[in-house]
Order: sequence, then C-alpha cells, then structure tokens
Amino acid sequence: MDYKTLCFSLFDYKTEKWVFLVKKGYQEVNTSIQSSVITKVKGVAFTNTSELKERLWDVADYVIPSQGENVFFVVTNLIVTPNQRQSHCAESSRVPGAVCSQDSDCPKGEAVITGNGVKTGTCLMGAGNSSGTCEIFAWCPVEKVSKPTKPLLGKAEDFTVYIKNTICFPRFNFSKSNVLQTKDRSFLKFCRFSPDNHYCPIFRLGTLVSYTGNDFQEMALEGGVIGIHIEWDCDLDRGPSACEPQYSFRRLDNRFAEKSVSSGYNFRFAKYYQDANGVEFRTLMKVYGIRFDVLVNGKAGKFNIIPMVINVGTSMALMGAGAFFCDLVLIYLIKKSHFYREKKFEQVRLSSQKLLSKYLANGKQDTGLSAGEEPLGQVQTVEK
Amino acid sequence: MDYKTLCFSLFDYKTEKWVFLVKKGYQEVNTSIQSSVITKVKGVAFTNTSELKERLWDVADYVIPSQGENVFFVVTNLIVTPNQRQSHCAESSRVPGAVCSQDSDCPKGEAVITGNGVKTGTCLMGAGNSSGTCEIFAWCPVEKVSKPTKPLLGKAEDFTVYIKNTICFPRFNFSKSNVLQTKDRSFLKFCRFSPDNHYCPIFRLGTLVSYTGNDFQEMALEGGVIGIHIEWDCDLDRGPSACEPQYSFRRLDNRFAEKSVSSGYNFRFAKYYQDANGVEFRTLMKVYGIRFDVLVNGKAGKFNIIPMVINVGTSMALMGAGAFFCDLVLIYLIKKSHFYREKKFEQVRLSSQKLLSKYLANGKQDTGLSAGEEPLGQVQTVEK
Amino acid sequence: MDYKTLCFSLFDYKTEKWVFLVKKGYQEVNTSIQSSVITKVKGVAFTNTSELKERLWDVADYVIPSQGENVFFVVTNLIVTPNQRQSHCAESSRVPGAVCSQDSDCPKGEAVITGNGVKTGTCLMGAGNSSGTCEIFAWCPVEKVSKPTKPLLGKAEDFTVYIKNTICFPRFNFSKSNVLQTKDRSFLKFCRFSPDNHYCPIFRLGTLVSYTGNDFQEMALEGGVIGIHIEWDCDLDRGPSACEPQYSFRRLDNRFAEKSVSSGYNFRFAKYYQDANGVEFRTLMKVYGIRFDVLVNGKAGKFNIIPMVINVGTSMALMGAGAFFCDLVLIYLIKKSHFYREKKFEQVRLSSQKLLSKYLANGKQDTGLSAGEEPLGQVQTVEK
Repeated sequence: MDYKTLCFSLFDYKTEKWVFLVKKGYQEVNTSIQSSVITKVKGVAFTNTSELKERLWDVADYVIPSQGENVFFVVTNLIVTPNQRQSHCAESSRVPGAVCSQDSDCPKGEAVITGNGVKTGTCLMGAGNSSGTCEIFAWCPVEKVSKPTKPLLGKAEDFTVYIKNTICFPRFNFSKSNVLQTKDRSFLKFCRFSPDNHYCPIFRLGTLVSYTGNDFQEMALEGGVIGIHIEWDCDLDRGPSACEPQYSFRRLDNRFAEKSVSSGYNFRFAKYYQDANGVEFRTLMKVYGIRFDVLVNGKAGKFNIIPMVINVGTSMALMGAGAFFCDLVLIYLIKKSHFYREKKFEQVRLSSQKLLSKYLANGKQDTGLSAGEEPLGQVQTVEK
Repeated sequence: MDYKTLCFSLFDYKTEKWVFLVKKGYQEVNTSIQSSVITKVKGVAFTNTSELKERLWDVADYVIPSQGENVFFVVTNLIVTPNQRQSHCAESSRVPGAVCSQDSDCPKGEAVITGNGVKTGTCLMGAGNSSGTCEIFAWCPVEKVSKPTKPLLGKAEDFTVYIKNTICFPRFNFSKSNVLQTKDRSFLKFCRFSPDNHYCPIFRLGTLVSYTGNDFQEMALEGGVIGIHIEWDCDLDRGPSACEPQYSFRRLDNRFAEKSVSSGYNFRFAKYYQDANGVEFRTLMKVYGIRFDVLVNGKAGKFNIIPMVINVGTSMALMGAGAFFCDLVLIYLIKKSHFYREKKFEQVRLSSQKLLSKYLANGKQDTGLSAGEEPLGQVQTVEK
Repeated sequence: MDYKTLCFSLFDYKTEKWVFLVKKGYQEVNTSIQSSVITKVKGVAFTNTSELKERLWDVADYVIPSQGENVFFVVTNLIVTPNQRQSHCAESSRVPGAVCSQDSDCPKGEAVITGNGVKTGTCLMGAGNSSGTCEIFAWCPVEKVSKPTKPLLGKAEDFTVYIKNTICFPRFNFSKSNVLQTKDRSFLKFCRFSPDNHYCPIFRLGTLVSYTGNDFQEMALEGGVIGIHIEWDCDLDRGPSACEPQYSFRRLDNRFAEKSVSSGYNFRFAKYYQDANGVEFRTLMKVYGIRFDVLVNGKAGKFNIIPMVINVGTSMALMGAGAFFCDLVLIYLIKKSHFYREKKFEQVRLSSQKLLSKYLANGKQDTGLSAGEEPLGQVQTVEK
C-alpha cells in the first residue's frame, strides 16, 4: 500500500461508515410522526387538617385538568381560603405599598399589580398601632401568605399514572402503541413500568420522580415540572419489533435555583358557589404540585432507492474529494515530495521515450505500435 | 451515443431530476411555521333519562375544555353520580381487595390504588350473607361500575365544529388562513367542508369520524381520539394560491385493540356545590367522548441563490461521481474492455506521434507548430 | 490571476463561506430541545356595571385555564347570562328558523344547529303581533345576542405576565433558563421586559400587544390570539452566554379580516350551582379575550469531527465541481477560447518537445533526463 492509498483510506473510511452504517444512508427517513397521548391517574389519599377536617382526595379532586391529555398536574399541596366574598377588608401586609399610617397613604381606586384588590381610601390600623394596612375592595378575606412546610398530599407518591401513547407514521402506513397487545385483562391492573418491562406504561409517581434524580417529598412541597419523553426510533426494514419506545425522564423546571425566587410550580383557582340569596362566594385554592409533560418524538427509516443512489453518489464525490485532498497533501504540502512527484510524471515521460525508441528502431511513422502491444499499459507497472 | 455517455446518463438522470424537480433544490425551504388554531363547536341535544330527567345539552355542557383550542373533547356518553359527600359507605365489590368476610380483612387506613377511599376497619355484610365489602371513607355513594350500552349523546353526530387555522412563515413574511376571505356573512353560516370545498372548515362531527373509517355511534359509546392534520406545503414562487391546506383524518387511539382493556377514552370530573350549612358535595361525572386533536404542519419554499448554487455544485459533484462510476464499471469491471481502454489512451499516443512526425519533417526544434494549426484539437476527433 | 482562478474563486467563495461560516458546517447541530413553560399572570381590575354591580376581578376569575401552562387566556370582555335553568322560553329571533307565525312553523323536537334548544311545537307571539319566535326547551333565559362596544376589563392592559422558560439540549447535556440567575429577591418583583433587559421575562400585557402592532383596547373588544415565540440559537462552542433567548411577537389570528365574520376570539363556559331543592342552575358566560401562545424553538451546535470531515469533503467536491464548471464555461461556452485552450495543452506539447530535443542532443535513450533536472516543473511556468 503506497502513500496515496493509505491517505485515501484514512480519509474515506470514517465518513463512508458514518453515512452508510450510522446514519443509515440507504433509508428514506421520515420524522412526521402522528402521536396521541392518553393519561389516567389512579389513587386516593386521606388528609386530616384543622382547616379541611377529615377529607378524602380522589382523582376528580387532585388532577387538573381532568381530561387526561399529554400534560397533567397532580396537586401535592395547597393553601385554601374558603368563603371569599366581594367586600371590604385589610390588604395583606406583604403586598408592596399596603402598609399605611394615614388614609392619604391609600389613594381610593388604586390597584397594585401584586395586590389583592383596589384601595378604598381608608387606612385600617389596629387599636394602639401607629401603622396598619390599607383597606381594599376584594375577595375577602384575602389569602394568608404562608409557605407550606410539609406537603399535604405527600401520599401522592404512591399514585400511579397510566400513559398510553399511540403513534403513526403515515408515510409508511405504520402504527404502534406503547402498550403490550394482550387479551389478559389483569395485565394492566397489576403490572408496573420498569426498564425490563417497557410495554407496561404504568408509573408510580414517586418512582417517576426518582428517575429524574429528585426526591418526591421535597418536590411535592413547592411543586415542579417533570418531562416524560418517549422516543420512537424505528428501523422499519427490521419489522415492527425493531420499533420500540425509549423513555427518558427529566426535571424541566429550574432545579439549579431551588432557593431562588423563581422555583417551584403553583397556581390559583377557585370554586364558585351561590348562597340562598343568590350571592356568589368562592373557595380560593393555591395549589402546589407536579406537572407532568409527556413529549413524543420519533423517526422511521425504510429502504428506498433514491436516497440510496444519492448517498452512493455523494460518497463517491467524497472519494473524489479524498483523492484530491491526498494529492494536495502529498504534492504541495509535503516538502520532500520529489520521489512521489517524479514517479507520477514519469509515466508520461517513459511512454514518450518508449515511443521514440520504437520509432527510431523501426524507422516508421504511420504505425508507431504494432497490434497486441500495450506500451501504456506497461507504463503503469514500470517503477523507476 | 457510446457506452460511457449511456451509463452516465442512466446514473445521473434520476438523481438530477429528484434533486431539482421533486425536491425543488433551487428553493430555500423553511419549516418554521407559526400556527394558531381556534375551534368552535355548535349544536344542542336533548336527552331524557331516569337519572337526569329531561335535559338539554349545549356547548357549555358538553365541550371540555371550553376554550376552543387545538385540542377539544365532545362528551358523547356519561355516568353521573350525584350528591356525593365525604362520608362512610361500602366499597364497590369490583375493587380488588374490597370483598371481606370479617373486619380484619379491612385494615383501618389502608388505601387501595384502584379503590375509591380508605378502609375504616369494618366489614359491611348484608343480613344473612357470608361476605360483603369493606366500609370506606370516601365520596359517598361510590360510582356504580356499569359499562354503557348506548351513547347518551348520540346526537352529537350532527354537531358541527368550525376549525380556523391561521399560519405564518416569518422567514418569508407570508400569512394565510384556511378560511375563505369573504365579506359574505352567510358563507360561514351555511357552508360545510367537503373535498371540493376546502375553504369552508366547518365539519359535521359524524362526517369527520367517517373520514377516518369509523362509525360515530360505535365510537361514541366508549370514546376515542381523532387526529385532524392540516398540512401546508407552499411553493411561494407560485403565489399565495399555490399554498393550500391539505386535510387528513386519522383515528389516533388504538383501534386495533377495540376489545382490549385499553380501548376508548374517558375521564372523571366533578362539579362542586355547597349546601345551606356550607358542607361541600359534588356531582361526579365519568364522561366518555371523542377528543379531536388538530395538528398543523407546514413548509414553504422560495427561490434563493444560495441553495441553488449549492445544489448545482452537488449535482455536478454527483455528475463527477457518475463519470467515475462509469469509468469504474467500464474499465475494471467489464472484462472485454480492451477496445475502450485503448481508445482512451490513444489520444495521448497519437498526439505524441503527430508531434514527432512534424518535428522530423520540419527539422526544427523551437517552433514545433506553426500558428493556426491545432494538432491536439484534431486528436480529439481522431478515431482509430 | 488567470481566467480559471478567477472563475473558480467566484464560484467557490460564496458556497464555501456559506457552508462553513454561516451554516457552521464544522458543528454537530441538534434541534431536539426539551422545553418547559410556566406562566403566571398578575393584576386586579375593578368593574361596576348594572348587571354585575361592583365587582373585583383577580387572577382566579379572569385567567383560563388557571394552570399556567404555555397557552393562557385573559378575559377582557364578557356577556353574562345568570340564573339559567332547564325550562321553556322563547328562542332568540337571531337564530335562523326561529321566527314563526303559527305553531306548525315550530316542529316539536327539532333542534337547530346554531340554536339554543329544541322546539316544543309552540309559536310564542306577543299580543297583537303577527309573528314571534318558537318556544324552546333550553337553558332559559337564552343569551342576549349583543355585540359589546367597550371592553369590560380594559384595565387588563396593565396586568403583567411572568413567562418562565427552561430549556435543555439532552444531546449536549446543556440547560438554561430565560430568567436571570440571581439571589436578589426584589429583581423579579420590579423588573420589566425590554429589548435591553432580556433576562426579566415579565411582560405588561399592553406592551406585549403593542409589540405586535396592535392596540390593546381594540383587541380586547372582540378578542384575538397573540404568539410569543422564544428562539434559542445556541453556539455551545462559545459558552453558555452565547445561548440567549430571542423573543418575537406576532398576532396569530386573522387580523386582515378584522371586519370579516371570522374575526376575534371568544368562547362560552358556565358555572354550575344547585339551589336548596337540589335543582341545578348555571351562569353562562360568553368571554372575549386574548389568548397567548408561548412557542419555543431552538437549536444548538457544538464542534464535532464527523460533520467537519463530511463538510470538508463536500466542500472539496464542490471545489471540484467549481473547477469542472469553470472548464465548461471557458472551453465550451466562450467562443474566443483559443488562447486558453492552447495554453492548457501546450504543457504536454512543450514537455514532449523538450524531451525530444534532449534526446537528439544526447543521443541516449535510457537516461532521457539527468538527476536534478525538473523539465516538467519548468513547463508549468512556461508561457507562450
């Protein structure tokens, strides 16, 4: 093997292998996946607090929204403010600008962005205090600002979620589901997902959180977001069984800044009621919890002659480029290239010499070569 | 046409055509589509059951969520459990582990994942029975487990949904909607979508389901998921009218397993009330229905000089590869290649012979050729 | 610089630069971004209408859905129909087919798609009128059809929304958030987004709408959809600081057709109540408002040897194509190409002449050239 072959091989081997074997250059690849996700959470939890008394929580209570789509939220903690009515009360002292010492500190009609209502123009001070908070028109009483110290629904750790994902590659008319196709009715009642049991997509929430390297109880306190990624990488040339879902789990909200102002996940919503007189009142809930985002990606490849030809062509162009590159390196860049350069041009020279010698020997001009002789063919094997 | 030209043409024709005509290699392609979907369902249905009595269902009752986003759900069937309160009652006998023959079978505080509440430690047995079910603390009474046999809201088949999709390709500053731009106010009131009427995106739900090859009444019974795909494949060089939405419809949940444990689509939600004493109670609803997922994809292409040049270059590289490939085939692979090989190298040989003969004839060394003569030019046409 | 070099340079310069500098051909590019969006709206508004009396609106009242996901809707206007009950009443005269002059115009049980209920078979006419509307069984009274003239919650202009977006490129194990990492608790309380302050993703709704070129009050009247696009284009070779979110804002619903039948964004939902007798009644709300869709895209590039080699190869193939292209242009297309063509072939001719002269001078055949001489090297610089 001479210099050029060596160089050429080195250049070409990697790219060729990459294009054909790693990237499956002979396949038509389609990433237009149609996916449907259905989720269903199961489990009940019992709580007993001074505010809510004895209470049982079931799916209709703690899953928001209830539809079972690809994004669902499980309540793990909450602050309840019952019986709020539209009336007048004192603003929370935590709201910027709420503290006052006289009525003029509370301009009538002013609304603070982060406040709970509009000021009425009165400063409410407790007897003997020199300062108080502005009176506001709002849903009263206002929510108590208190950070929770223990998750109310810590038992949500044992809840399970069933994630059914059906995919389709319309281009190849191929459909598959992440659930084992079985007639055994008890299979989906008792199985649990594990790395060895990919076709049972029923996850214990606590285990699901632990896959991301987080602690459920810690996360349950202030909430968070977990991403459940299902990746379908299908080689349809190898049949349906070569098209398996790959799961990966990741905490999506900013865990780095657990102590920062922007950590956790919570939101407020209200249940509205009317009393016997038709007056509306509500129960405000600030719920903390874990949001699960199920994200599906996928691609499928199948043999097709067009990308095959294109890639063969491109690879050959790359081979040409490799040859050019090697010439470049050997002729122009390596200083001590006399040997190689001479050898290359020698061929022409030798053929001319041979031609000439033949001519002089034969003394003929019109038939420089007799049939059967292959002078140039020989030149290719001549070595100086 | 000789061998090489033939071979070269065969190799090159397909790839060239593919790159330039099918793949529109001269265009810059952008798939970054910005899409907005607004949906609105219309229709009312009347039901008369023993549980619910006479009742009229309108949009606010049967569309969940109500926002009109790209995913919406239409209730077609439901199991209602009214007046549930937090109290003690018997667990359903369908729940695993609920059947008991003595109190010790029902450990106090135990919650079963698939159950409705936590056990109180008592086994409830009817008079004269040897077994019963555990008493639980739960939202009582518990839901009756009964598979529906006929869809309650079968008339949903005649409901319509208006799907408005506006897209934008920011790269090309191009926007379009799937709705006919008209000043005729009655157009959207009376038109219906059909393959001939692409610009009236108002679909009858029954027709929409039939496009997927399913029967509405059958699907309404246990629910399902339908995907409505809108594909925008825009050739902006040909003007806005060459940018039309293409609709396709597909059932996304697993229809193959209609009899399996994992078929259908349903979820539970509750409406919460308070009685005069401020005690909360709720109406639990297990709703079956059809979820519609509107998915939008698209790409736009427009002439641009850069991909044009790149593709011309690549095509030429491919042409080079084609030539190389043909040489390979003709010289090394075809055994009887003497004729071709000789013809190729003949050119150099002939030119040398001619040069030599001229030299010898003229006896001059410095001006081997007189002006106007083109010996090498001739060589190209010389044939042995 | 001769013709060929010039031609070659012109052809090659652009594509080379494009592949390597603009497209960063030496990087492995990954578009598989994992994104999480959490949104939180803040603000309160006070309204005083004849229907609703004095009322304060807070987040739980006007944000739908309440979860704080990537799509959220802020109510800016509404039509309230309180105390609807299942009963009999007159259909709205706006509904097609509702107007009647005798009972036979109202076939019993008929439901009109765009109507509010099913006809009872009675035509309700006011005293002395010759026509009226059909009686229907529905949620009564029916909604008054009245276009709003002024947005009820125009003050929503001053509400703020906090959009937290955390992204991750799993391929490169790289995570980043659009929020400044700071320990300063007051930063997120008082900062506002501006083109100079990219790491404070707190937007005033009015400003957000104005970025799209729309007027908030005008949009608030009938609603609309705003897209908030966050683009992450990350060059990870340059460190995390070269990975910045780029915001763009665009109105997604069809603003062109502001006067058309399909403009605006609204939907209906209901709050359900029960009276002391357990009879259900509801408050129907037709809400107009602005839906905000937060869409996240991104790609990250990092140096990798494989695409580097592939691109070097392709570029070289392009260079070959360039050379071929230039030959094509110069030899075959330019008519007056004698000079160039002769110069090209001159080299071989000259070398043959030189060889010949040497031979004749030396009279030797076996050593046509003495060591050290580089006749062909000289040829390359010979000019006719």
